[in-house]
Amino acid sequence: MPNALVTLVKDMQFVGDSGTGHAIVMDADEKFGGSNTGARPIELLLIGFGGCTGMDVISILRKKRQEITNFEIKVDGQRQEGHPGRYTAIHLIYTVTGRNVSKEAVERAISLSLDKYCSVGATLARSAEITHEYRIIDTAEESGGDERIRTAE
Amino acid sequence: MPNALVTLVKDMQFVGDSGTGHAIVMDADEKFGGSNTGARPIELLLIGFGGCTGMDVISILRKKRQEITNFEIKVDGQRQEGHPGRYTAIHLIYTVTGRNVSKEAVERAISLSLDKYCSVGATLARSAEITHEYRIIDTAEESGGDERIRTAE
Repeated sequence: MPNALVTLVKDMQFVGDSGTGHAIVMDADEKFGGSNTGARPIELLLIGFGGCTGMDVISILRKKRQEITNFEIKVDGQRQEGHPGRYTAIHLIYTVTGRNVSKEAVERAISLSLDKYCSVGATLARSAEITHEYRIIDTAEESGGDERIRTAE
Repeated sequence: MPNALVTLVKDMQFVGDSGTGHAIVMDADEKFGGSNTGARPIELLLIGFGGCTGMDVISILRKKRQEITNFEIKVDGQRQEGHPGRYTAIHLIYTVTGRNVSKEAVERAISLSLDKYCSVGATLARSAEITHEYRIIDTAEESGGDERIRTAE
């Protein structure tokens, strides 16, 4: 089962050891006594969500023989005002770049991740409304000079 | 509002940029096509939780003039079996080391964090039952050779 060990270094700087042996520095903003040497803890939820659904989606697209050259996910969080400020909404924007990428394959891969596979998403969905959109940048006609960009909400 | 940009590097390796400018590498296990070059996305939730409550607790203990020399938080997660495997329980073990540390101050600081201030905890508490225990290692009598260790559930 997943576990982590988080250790105070100094001031508001902490280092977290993931159970699989990777270290992550966290720190607070200067106005909260930190030195901004690492990510805010609350940001890690969004990064983890992007990584989780990103791994799902790229795996599925590869199985579907899609030729992906670039792939990124922007993750925007909204928090409740005041304390404790939990996430109430998270919006994902997937950008898939490749040659002749199938819109249906991208839609299906994202649905499978968000509805079935992504553990981080399923955890956060209990607190936040999850929405998404995607954008496909098709490089097949790059020689023509124009990238076709398709978007969907 | 918090945001992150997560970008595929290669295979299952992704790099997440936190909105405050810090980069975190994530990767899958070898058996899922990764190379274990970074933390699993699901682990980031536990690290973030430890960092979030850790910052709260150390801030409160410092305000209460507690002399803390070491401080760590172990975070154990339990996930639902099968897909998507969201977190259903998270257990925190705080270990506070210092001179004449007040048990009441530690208890109060942890309660304030978990019940009032910690944004990561409030988000995860919608999915997982949160429990904790703490341990105080008192170094005041170090010269006597024995550390007094007090634990509580």
